Amino acid sequence: MADLFLALIHHPVIDRNGRIVTSAITSLDLHDIARSAHTYGVKRAYIVHPIPEQREFAATVIDHWRFDFGRSFDGRRREALEIIKIVNTLDDAIADASTLSASRPLVVHTSARTSGGMMTSELRHKMEASDAPPVMILFGTGFGMAPSVLERADIVLKAILGPGDYNHLSVRAAVSIILDRLRGR
Amino acid sequence: MADLFLALIHHPVIDRNGRIVTSAITSLDLHDIARSAHTYGVKRAYIVHPIPEQREFAATVIDHWRFDFGRSFDGRRREALEIIKIVNTLDDAIADASTLSASRPLVVHTSARTSGGMMTSELRHKMEASDAPPVMILFGTGFGMAPSVLERADIVLKAILGPGDYNHLSVRAAVSIILDRLRGR
Repeated sequence: MADLFLALIHHPVIDRNGRIVTSAITSLDLHDIARSAHTYGVKRAYIVHPIPEQREFAATVIDHWRFDFGRSFDGRRREALEIIKIVNTLDDAIADASTLSASRPLVVHTSARTSGGMMTSELRHKMEASDAPPVMILFGTGFGMAPSVLERADIVLKAILGPGDYNHLSVRAAVSIILDRLRGR
Repeated sequence: MADLFLALIHHPVIDRNGRIVTSAITSLDLHDIARSAHTYGVKRAYIVHPIPEQREFAATVIDHWRFDFGRSFDGRRREALEIIKIVNTLDDAIADASTLSASRPLVVHTSARTSGGMMTSELRHKMEASDAPPVMILFGTGFGMAPSVLERADIVLKAILGPGDYNHLSVRAAVSIILDRLRGR
């Protein structure tokens, strides 16, 4: 089974007007995404942010649960947060994952606006092959990743849809659903 | 296709020590769950809380997006929040759904600790029948619903699992994943 990584991208992302911006890290993203990632066997979840103060904020949230109050309050939450790694750029995330898995991961793009693209069921099938390369799934915060991130992708996933046309999931929900489609049982 | 409802239960739920408590409503649950519910065609999402001040808090969060800042900031979020209804008890939720669908919904229990129970794929199949009754999925906040809620259920769903034994999803993630399993495409 392929090693699975994910990266939560805060720059470059777009805002509701399509402008390229840097979004803020939220502590709830860290918690929810760590818990979902650990449930589905993600090897490492990268929080990608170019601003040092924001990376320090994220580290503080995680340390709170690692060392202080959180350790005694909820050990399962601490365990999940340990798979998070905070990095400066997507390249740093790819380099770290490449070292961990001894092979460069296939980079997978996700977006609520992709009408074409690979079905999650097809990616799951690929990932279950015994010689499958590692896979890193990218998720955009804000209103999604900027178009330039798409150029980094080896695979583009089809958008998640329900029965209708409305799809405005939180990034926390999108991460959970895609992980479940790839690894759930 | 069956009418689909969900109810987010804040009492009676258990805390990390297994004590029966009432949990607080969080605004992020309202947002994330409304967005996931609307994406998957949920007819109405009930926020169940016995304390009037908590119900008023939830109403304030929704009104903020319905009337003020939120309406102009993000119309899609307002649209999602309109499917939320805040009620006192599970009985109120069932009564309201029964009126909306002209038939009492099957009540479906979810828990991270159910090793037996119905597979989501089987429930999906049942719900796709042309004469399927409405369905209401219950989700517990805190550390899950108290045992007494189980007695209200017509169907008990098997817990969501990834490849390993760890499953400590947020309720926001669990709602998203179960809706996707029942209605995703």
